[in-house]
Amino acid sequence: MKPEAGFIGLGSMGLPMAQRLLAAGVRLTVFNRTAAKAQPLIENGAILAQTRADAAVPGGIVFTMLADDAAVESVVVGEQGIARRLAPGGIHVSMSTIAPSTARLLARYHAEQGSTYVAAPVLGRPERAASGQLVVCTSGPVAARETVRPLLDHLGQAIYDYGEEPGAANVVKLSANFMIAAAIEAMAEAFAMVERNGIDRLRVAQMLGQTLFACPLYQSYGEMVAAKRHTPAGFKLLLGLKDLDLVLKTAGQARVPCPTASVVRDRILSGLAHGRENLDWSALALGVLEEAAIEVG
Amino acid sequence: MKPEAGFIGLGSMGLPMAQRLLAAGVRLTVFNRTAAKAQPLIENGAILAQTRADAAVPGGIVFTMLADDAAVESVVVGEQGIARRLAPGGIHVSMSTIAPSTARLLARYHAEQGSTYVAAPVLGRPERAASGQLVVCTSGPVAARETVRPLLDHLGQAIYDYGEEPGAANVVKLSANFMIAAAIEAMAEAFAMVERNGIDRLRVAQMLGQTLFACPLYQSYGEMVAAKRHTPAGFKLLLGLKDLDLVLKTAGQARVPCPTASVVRDRILSGLAHGRENLDWSALALGVLEEAAIEVG
Amino acid sequence: MKPEAGFIGLGSMGLPMAQRLLAAGVRLTVFNRTAAKAQPLIENGAILAQTRADAAVPGGIVFTMLADDAAVESVVVGEQGIARRLAPGGIHVSMSTIAPSTARLLARYHAEQGSTYVAAPVLGRPERAASGQLVVCTSGPVAARETVRPLLDHLGQAIYDYGEEPGAANVVKLSANFMIAAAIEAMAEAFAMVERNGIDRLRVAQMLGQTLFACPLYQSYGEMVAAKRHTPAGFKLLLGLKDLDLVLKTAGQARVPCPTASVVRDRILSGLAHGRENLDWSALALGVLEEAAIEVG
Amino acid sequence: MKPEAGFIGLGSMGLPMAQRLLAAGVRLTVFNRTAAKAQPLIENGAILAQTRADAAVPGGIVFTMLADDAAVESVVVGEQGIARRLAPGGIHVSMSTIAPSTARLLARYHAEQGSTYVAAPVLGRPERAASGQLVVCTSGPVAARETVRPLLDHLGQAIYDYGEEPGAANVVKLSANFMIAAAIEAMAEAFAMVERNGIDRLRVAQMLGQTLFACPLYQSYGEMVAAKRHTPAGFKLLLGLKDLDLVLKTAGQARVPCPTASVVRDRILSGLAHGRENLDWSALALGVLEEAAIEVG
Repeated sequence: MKPEAGFIGLGSMGLPMAQRLLAAGVRLTVFNRTAAKAQPLIENGAILAQTRADAAVPGGIVFTMLADDAAVESVVVGEQGIARRLAPGGIHVSMSTIAPSTARLLARYHAEQGSTYVAAPVLGRPERAASGQLVVCTSGPVAARETVRPLLDHLGQAIYDYGEEPGAANVVKLSANFMIAAAIEAMAEAFAMVERNGIDRLRVAQMLGQTLFACPLYQSYGEMVAAKRHTPAGFKLLLGLKDLDLVLKTAGQARVPCPTASVVRDRILSGLAHGRENLDWSALALGVLEEAAIEVG
Repeated sequence: MKPEAGFIGLGSMGLPMAQRLLAAGVRLTVFNRTAAKAQPLIENGAILAQTRADAAVPGGIVFTMLADDAAVESVVVGEQGIARRLAPGGIHVSMSTIAPSTARLLARYHAEQGSTYVAAPVLGRPERAASGQLVVCTSGPVAARETVRPLLDHLGQAIYDYGEEPGAANVVKLSANFMIAAAIEAMAEAFAMVERNGIDRLRVAQMLGQTLFACPLYQSYGEMVAAKRHTPAGFKLLLGLKDLDLVLKTAGQARVPCPTASVVRDRILSGLAHGRENLDWSALALGVLEEAAIEVG
Repeated sequence: MKPEAGFIGLGSMGLPMAQRLLAAGVRLTVFNRTAAKAQPLIENGAILAQTRADAAVPGGIVFTMLADDAAVESVVVGEQGIARRLAPGGIHVSMSTIAPSTARLLARYHAEQGSTYVAAPVLGRPERAASGQLVVCTSGPVAARETVRPLLDHLGQAIYDYGEEPGAANVVKLSANFMIAAAIEAMAEAFAMVERNGIDRLRVAQMLGQTLFACPLYQSYGEMVAAKRHTPAGFKLLLGLKDLDLVLKTAGQARVPCPTASVVRDRILSGLAHGRENLDWSALALGVLEEAAIEVG
Repeated sequence: MKPEAGFIGLGSMGLPMAQRLLAAGVRLTVFNRTAAKAQPLIENGAILAQTRADAAVPGGIVFTMLADDAAVESVVVGEQGIARRLAPGGIHVSMSTIAPSTARLLARYHAEQGSTYVAAPVLGRPERAASGQLVVCTSGPVAARETVRPLLDHLGQAIYDYGEEPGAANVVKLSANFMIAAAIEAMAEAFAMVERNGIDRLRVAQMLGQTLFACPLYQSYGEMVAAKRHTPAGFKLLLGLKDLDLVLKTAGQARVPCPTASVVRDRILSGLAHGRENLDWSALALGVLEEAAIEVG
């Protein structure tokens, strides 16, 4: 018998993820606020749900990949929300990057309704989603995690578990995004110093990507920052603000000062003030150039 | 005929580098303020110079690997300084991490005396020096760079040239060290947030080292930071202050604000205030724990 | 005929403010979640409302002085909320420090119910509230501001108007609190440098308070910071976090990077991590000492 | 008998200070690298020294008011330096803002030559120098301080002693300048938030200058920052960099992290990158506007 699942949220990440599941033989019922986006999935056999509620059946599994905390909440909560529709015994696999505190609230709400919340945020951009090479971080009740694991294996090259606490996976995900942004900022500062000393930024970026920082992340972002080229937007600057705000909120609740996160958030704010919301979030680097009165290009 | 060279400065980096050259068949005349440190080299055939001047001959090549700007200056300048002793036509290969502005001054001084200054600072810790796997960044007159290149090949896995400007190689080297320190700080902040949320720091460090940040630098520093273990000191915290001071000085002269470099310098200062000068410079991470009132361990 | 008003929120600020109004001859109906706090007012002729709704009458005036955005919202909104109870024509004078964006939402809500929201946050500590020497910043519809002005004159030594936009007064208030906190941080850094150089912190604080910074704010906070004495708490550190969070949120929505505000927030977080939530918010200065390994005292 | 003294350094501060001494009846021998600047003093009876050495006599008193550490050193040191020329028993009153560590070195050098170094840096701009209303901070041997005190009384409205340690007075002076710059930065951030919320910056600056921050410093800088007007330059931005560099150096030697000082230095660097070296140092505030994409004016 074919596995079944619902999938809500068919944006730049959700769509390729749903396609992976479909291609793996999962019978998928999909829902998106803008139904037209579901078209390529329908053509491959997915069923279109008319409402979020229709994507969930008692005892079933629903994936969500939505823009922010409010969007996830609106799908989960209420009479027609999936928390109630999945009961008894269903599982909500929540893959969006949201506040750990929101994940905790939603997990409790699910439990009250008789369903289960599994946090499963992912690392990776759309092209990795399309090739099933995401990194998936999970947390939540162990039985539910084991149930959904075979499905997650179609989406990610590796799955890392962080225990029962529903907020944990999102804390880890936010840490990762923060560390990426911090690396972009450090490159931006270093390359500005390099440029002002008459040295070719790109050659320095390449050297570092071949030696100390020989990993794809530094290589790809290093080239974008060095070349001052921030399209196409693998991850938009405006979304970067959301993530850094979540980092600072989560760290603040934990009473952990994160000065580097504040530096990065300030750069993002400056980029947004300059109208760069649709550039890749590596465009935060342009603020370093402006401060130093270096040609942005 | 065997190649010949002088080597001044036999500290934790200089000693293994001199040994590499010796093992490669270079006839080496060595000098160190504390002569006893030269013993292992003497046993392998090196000649002990009684003064810095004796390590340099007209038209020859001298390597220096010294603690700071003042130490390099004191070896170069004056009647007995190597700049004059190498003239006419000799080459000083200066491998210490010093201010680009100092490198420029020394290059001019060498030129006035009739010898040549080649900047060749290196990336890598003592164990990489011992195995000849350093990364060497060079700048200076092209003819001199070509002359010393075969010798540098014994020291480094790769040699990156940054042109004629003598300060350039040190700017690149400082950029690299700054980016390492910035990565340590970002990990420290992220792991503190992770720990305060009840998640195992080490498992997060490992995941990141296997996925987004799959390079030895993040893996090794990631484990040190996550484990709060900062011995042995591959690079001492006290030396880290020197490097960050040079970064901020160099960036300041170039009118480039580097807020992340300031954050890192502040962490190093705090570590030194707490008596950690002999720990590895990754111990800057402990300041993040103290600010958040997390057990330093 | 005596003027009448309701007053909700009898904390360390609200109580002396209500007493001022009472002493000025205002017939006051008061409400507080913990009714016992109203006792001194009742003894001076105030009427105790049993519910928030009872503190508001159609066409009347209600002052609120509450802990945070959520508390103000809960008093305003709903069937029993004062927005509806004041309608038609009543005025809510909201004196708490809240987010400008919350003020805007509440103003719209009031307007929908037929009443008016006037923002009137205050500068000053409890002792100034008791002596009627607060500084009051107002914004909102001009007619309503004029109506409540005679009452505000009993509370403040000066009233500054910032126009019709309901959020404006709170933006100004947040600016002021941020500037106070920034001054505390700057003093803390300066005095730490002074102390580590063997100089008497207190004498430096006094000199500055007599010369460049000859205003009560620098004099009083200067002495607290220099003496490392942070009781009694005129304004608690925990409340300081709320204010700095509002500053960073408001500045973020306006796309204005505020690095100093981030530095201050980090100090507050560190102070809270060290259990100082009930000290005066000048205790954020202790984090500077800890970073420099100076005796906190 | 008229008191006598030498005065070296007739810049925007030194000239009015020398005039004060002259007007008070001091027989003044003056020296300036550009002799023409001494003209107004000569016309009032000052004697022009042909060399720095001629401004100093054995057992005499020499004031210096010079641009930076190097300038003071060049006047003090050597065969023709004033340290030797003042011996035996003369006193050098050093009023420039220099590094405390330089002051310590110079004090030792003076002692070796048989003369005495008194540190006496001042707070205040040229117009206060002209009216004798500077604030003078002193440190050094007590007997020498007492000897020069009557002369200093002509220059300052108040003299604050910080003991025998020659570096102390400069530490205090640097603290004061740092606190001014930090106040400018805080205003700049607050007013940017205010402006972006549609509120009149100037009215907020005025309110704060009349209430919480009722001191001339906040009033004058507040108006400059609010009006985005940074001429005339009471203290040039380029000199501000020198002072902040000294603060960070001095704090660094004392192992005291000063994040606010780093924020301010970064703003100054950005201002210099944008060609503002001759504006008043309050122009550091313009960087806040640029980051937020607000019209600089």
